[in-house]
Amino acid sequence: MVIRDVDGDTKQRFACDSCGNIHYTNPKIVVGALSYWEDKVLLSKRAIEPRKGFWNVPAGYLEDFEKAEDGAIRETWEEAGTDIEIIQPYVIYNLPQANQVYIHFLAKLKDGIVRNGEESLESGLFTEEEIPWKEMAFTSSTFALRRFFRERPSGIFTVHLGTFPDKI
Amino acid sequence: MVIRDVDGDTKQRFACDSCGNIHYTNPKIVVGALSYWEDKVLLSKRAIEPRKGFWNVPAGYLEDFEKAEDGAIRETWEEAGTDIEIIQPYVIYNLPQANQVYIHFLAKLKDGIVRNGEESLESGLFTEEEIPWKEMAFTSSTFALRRFFRERPSGIFTVHLGTFPDKI
Repeated sequence: MVIRDVDGDTKQRFACDSCGNIHYTNPKIVVGALSYWEDKVLLSKRAIEPRKGFWNVPAGYLEDFEKAEDGAIRETWEEAGTDIEIIQPYVIYNLPQANQVYIHFLAKLKDGIVRNGEESLESGLFTEEEIPWKEMAFTSSTFALRRFFRERPSGIFTVHLGTFPDKI
Repeated sequence: MVIRDVDGDTKQRFACDSCGNIHYTNPKIVVGALSYWEDKVLLSKRAIEPRKGFWNVPAGYLEDFEKAEDGAIRETWEEAGTDIEIIQPYVIYNLPQANQVYIHFLAKLKDGIVRNGEESLESGLFTEEEIPWKEMAFTSSTFALRRFFRERPSGIFTVHLGTFPDKI
């Protein structure tokens, strides 16, 4: 792979030095769901690196041709083995160093039953006091959870914009 | 380019048949800003295909390592030649057929002066009645504009989730 100029383009791009194909790169979309049931939120403990063994709001890469909210529902099933109902987009969180933009939805568990999923060591429901804040995998989750518990008493959820490493 | 299985992956991927490199594809993020000034919103007439000559809320592909809101500010400058201040994320709009997810921000013009930009034939400020609804380039813009004018009388802006070809 080489980096070179491309005709008609204003930026240098990655190109394959044997076949000449341009490998366009773009920021990746990570979709997730901050899901709640009564006064608890859903977290999963990661079974894979990076941050294996740390807790997270279920999230993962959006797949080709997938709707953002469908990706959040799929990731929640894969990580926590539970069905959710999407309420609204809740957090846009930039991770420019990783070339990622997170879209976290606010969601409700459909039946409150958490079975865990194949991508997690365990999953569970936590009150604000029970959350293992010091064992969270990523700041994107902490950012969303802090805002959720701040807004929950009013019952009015807005939308939030953040960037790592802003104050979480 | 060929499509083939990749070790350790659950999906088939595009691969280069001469160099063997895997060309991962992902949904692309389109960022834009629905920007207002007093009772008017900012629109630009596209100078390039697709939909050349049709009107749009300034928007374009998020660049590598760019924050979503910075992309919306950049695109608004490139298309309309004006500076904006981001207020909040406003619309998440899926375009699965095009493998795109739009993030439209709500924004204010900083000085109300629209100079036009190199990517547009012209740009201007429009009241709801003045908008050329039948000459809009993309439904993502119409979806955002309809919700803006519906919410504006209350002064309370929420966040919206949509998918083409849902009702706009």
